[in-house]
Amino acid sequence: MAADKSPLIHFTKFENIDLGNQLIESALTYKSNPLLDNTKGQGKRIGCIFLNPSLRTRVSTQLAALNLGMEPIVLNMDKEGWALELQDGAVMNRGTVEHIKDAAAVLGSYFDILAIRAFPSLTNKEEDMSDFTFSQFVKYSGVPVVSLESATRHPLQSLADQITIRENWSGKKKPKVVLTWGPHIKAIPHAVANSFAEWALGMDHDLTITHPSGYELDAEFTKGATIEYDQSKAIEGADFVYVKNWSSFNDYGKILSTDDSWMLTENHFANAKNAKVMHCLPVRRNLELSDEILDGSRSLVQQQAKNRIFAAQAVISHLLGNN
Amino acid sequence: MAADKSPLIHFTKFENIDLGNQLIESALTYKSNPLLDNTKGQGKRIGCIFLNPSLRTRVSTQLAALNLGMEPIVLNMDKEGWALELQDGAVMNRGTVEHIKDAAAVLGSYFDILAIRAFPSLTNKEEDMSDFTFSQFVKYSGVPVVSLESATRHPLQSLADQITIRENWSGKKKPKVVLTWGPHIKAIPHAVANSFAEWALGMDHDLTITHPSGYELDAEFTKGATIEYDQSKAIEGADFVYVKNWSSFNDYGKILSTDDSWMLTENHFANAKNAKVMHCLPVRRNLELSDEILDGSRSLVQQQAKNRIFAAQAVISHLLGNN
Amino acid sequence: MAADKSPLIHFTKFENIDLGNQLIESALTYKSNPLLDNTKGQGKRIGCIFLNPSLRTRVSTQLAALNLGMEPIVLNMDKEGWALELQDGAVMNRGTVEHIKDAAAVLGSYFDILAIRAFPSLTNKEEDMSDFTFSQFVKYSGVPVVSLESATRHPLQSLADQITIRENWSGKKKPKVVLTWGPHIKAIPHAVANSFAEWALGMDHDLTITHPSGYELDAEFTKGATIEYDQSKAIEGADFVYVKNWSSFNDYGKILSTDDSWMLTENHFANAKNAKVMHCLPVRRNLELSDEILDGSRSLVQQQAKNRIFAAQAVISHLLGNN
Repeated sequence: MAADKSPLIHFTKFENIDLGNQLIESALTYKSNPLLDNTKGQGKRIGCIFLNPSLRTRVSTQLAALNLGMEPIVLNMDKEGWALELQDGAVMNRGTVEHIKDAAAVLGSYFDILAIRAFPSLTNKEEDMSDFTFSQFVKYSGVPVVSLESATRHPLQSLADQITIRENWSGKKKPKVVLTWGPHIKAIPHAVANSFAEWALGMDHDLTITHPSGYELDAEFTKGATIEYDQSKAIEGADFVYVKNWSSFNDYGKILSTDDSWMLTENHFANAKNAKVMHCLPVRRNLELSDEILDGSRSLVQQQAKNRIFAAQAVISHLLGNN
Repeated sequence: MAADKSPLIHFTKFENIDLGNQLIESALTYKSNPLLDNTKGQGKRIGCIFLNPSLRTRVSTQLAALNLGMEPIVLNMDKEGWALELQDGAVMNRGTVEHIKDAAAVLGSYFDILAIRAFPSLTNKEEDMSDFTFSQFVKYSGVPVVSLESATRHPLQSLADQITIRENWSGKKKPKVVLTWGPHIKAIPHAVANSFAEWALGMDHDLTITHPSGYELDAEFTKGATIEYDQSKAIEGADFVYVKNWSSFNDYGKILSTDDSWMLTENHFANAKNAKVMHCLPVRRNLELSDEILDGSRSLVQQQAKNRIFAAQAVISHLLGNN
Repeated sequence: MAADKSPLIHFTKFENIDLGNQLIESALTYKSNPLLDNTKGQGKRIGCIFLNPSLRTRVSTQLAALNLGMEPIVLNMDKEGWALELQDGAVMNRGTVEHIKDAAAVLGSYFDILAIRAFPSLTNKEEDMSDFTFSQFVKYSGVPVVSLESATRHPLQSLADQITIRENWSGKKKPKVVLTWGPHIKAIPHAVANSFAEWALGMDHDLTITHPSGYELDAEFTKGATIEYDQSKAIEGADFVYVKNWSSFNDYGKILSTDDSWMLTENHFANAKNAKVMHCLPVRRNLELSDEILDGSRSLVQQQAKNRIFAAQAVISHLLGNN
């Protein structure tokens, strides 16, 4: 484990294997003793800013902060009617009530750490790829920022996923990890899939990604993974199968297939008898994943959800530093 | 008073007179010293899940938890766009985003206690009578659950009502308690009326229920009460008159009458000079109850509302146990 | 500084210069040591009731309370579907679910201090001028009430503004303070402008108010100020220029002008080289105020926003008293 010598300023993505291991170990320590550092954040506050809905992410981040003695304040800006202007130089004579540069600077001056959720539009690919909204908060707030899912990544989810894999893998070899596309009826962002791939590769797993043709992810996140269009071939010998829907990246934000043969059932595991199944939740049952799998012994989904608390706790603790 | 030997797992309804007395006495102790046990819940969290709006229930539960040193986190799932799927085996290819079995299990793994509000549909009688939504939370969360009003009952309200009656009754005989239907313009659930009857009978009061014909409550809750269709006869000699609207149970969820002669005024108390008047709030003035009564000396409504804090505090403290 | 001998019961407006100075000094003390009195509010709770949206006001009040060890609970009554009846004697057979006299009394019995935001209608001038909604909370709650902006005033904003002026003024003479109207596309309340004038005059500044004809403020708030219709003449020699839109008071709630020459740019400061520019935020960039000013060295807007915390902290601490 690397010494904590150059702590992160922001937590927005996978950085390196040493920091990854350090955060996983820290999270597991907190899981066995959640209140271990319950005065570390005393007198400090984290502002949790949601531009999009959340259940697990919101509550797990609040609990993580409370475990550290830090006070969380939640702002559901999507629901509280506070439409932000994002364009530099805009003449604000329409619907937006405050420029992100002013709002972010105020929030940065109010909180010790900001945590931000900002989904992609799925219509403006370039803006989404640059994590435009999220980046504006980072740029103008002047304090450490934690991603609660940006347009391109969901690193707290991926850290929780890695904690879960660590808890369920005692083999000597690299685990074979498969990320499989699953059907959905709505156009879903790429963030969870991108991030999962980034972390699995970064943590040196043997990663295979499988999806229908046309669903290729941004190559930035998948370099080093095996891409296999045949789902059953991909799953062969898998130790972990991560199920997630995403919309097309090439034909940006479009739904190209809802082929329900991609939904995992026990039949898909003929050649991967011991494979565990993962999903970030919320899951649409019997659309993305069958009841059979979710309610069976392969499923790690509840363990992943629980680990969200300790992932957030490890990250916030890291950002608070060693003092 | 019974020794606290077999503590409740959930708080969803009236259990027995010993526990009733124990909770009333505990609440009165907390009322005189709210911070008496202000470390009992330290490091623990209660999740308050609202599938329907709330003011008193939400705030009084938060305050009760804070009085015990416990951290409350509120989730307004009705407003936060998190539509839950309730049907087992559903193919979730429509509006619902998460199955209650997944959401409840995650919330159960996040909190030490869950408190849930889930109103009836007033359209599906069978489902409402089985407290379907609420019961799913109990079934899948795996932690103690407090009812913040289910389809059939509102036990924290009824406990607060009983605390209020205790504070206002020093007679030797059983108090004569009257539950009277009052007019309303909307179809209102039966939960408060059911629960009030269940607790008044359980606490061995002399209960009379009066309402227009067609407004009979579910007999499960009224066995042992006198049913009297003549309101003025019912009120004769009353010590406490509890006013509440409810929709028809037989003609399920329908409004059969808005007869404003049922709205209590001073004239109704010719034969019950010392009767106190109760209502759970919110009250529609001059529709359910007259200004004259609400602003006069008969009214206990503010005392009931205040007692909501200590009712919740006694219950949460009980669920936290003796350690 | 005056001795704190007759503490306020409510904080709703400017009272006198001694209390003004006392609160400014207290706020500056808290700014240099926010956690100085972090047990003063222990076991006490402030209820923050919003009948209208808020970002800065909500968060700064929560932080102020937390700094004093007090627990804040936020109620967004505008969003939580709790329509209040305001008319005395109303027969509540329409949309309102609870009378303000009942809701205010319950909230008053739940909290040690209430903080209320209640905007004007901008349609009923007489009701707005009497601060009707806000006053009902004061009348019926029975506890100290802090204004989070009423129909006529925004005293926490004005206190924060005065703190900011104090920090930026070391001259011997009275500072020349200019309140200038700026353009906007929506009909905006008068509260910030009224309150700013009330406090600037009360704190004995040299106040000039400038606006297009027809935008005269209520004379109650401006007695003692110089009214100057020529904006460039008004700004001459200014030390502080406060920018704010408001709708017409005479032609109540109407927009009479959107003349963009009133939007301040560097050109407006030819005869006020060292003037600082203030705005309460949120600001509509390039409509009310130019990017050039907001992003330049004249701007105090972020400092004002930060001072909201310490203004609220000084006020809450004052209301908590000396014990």
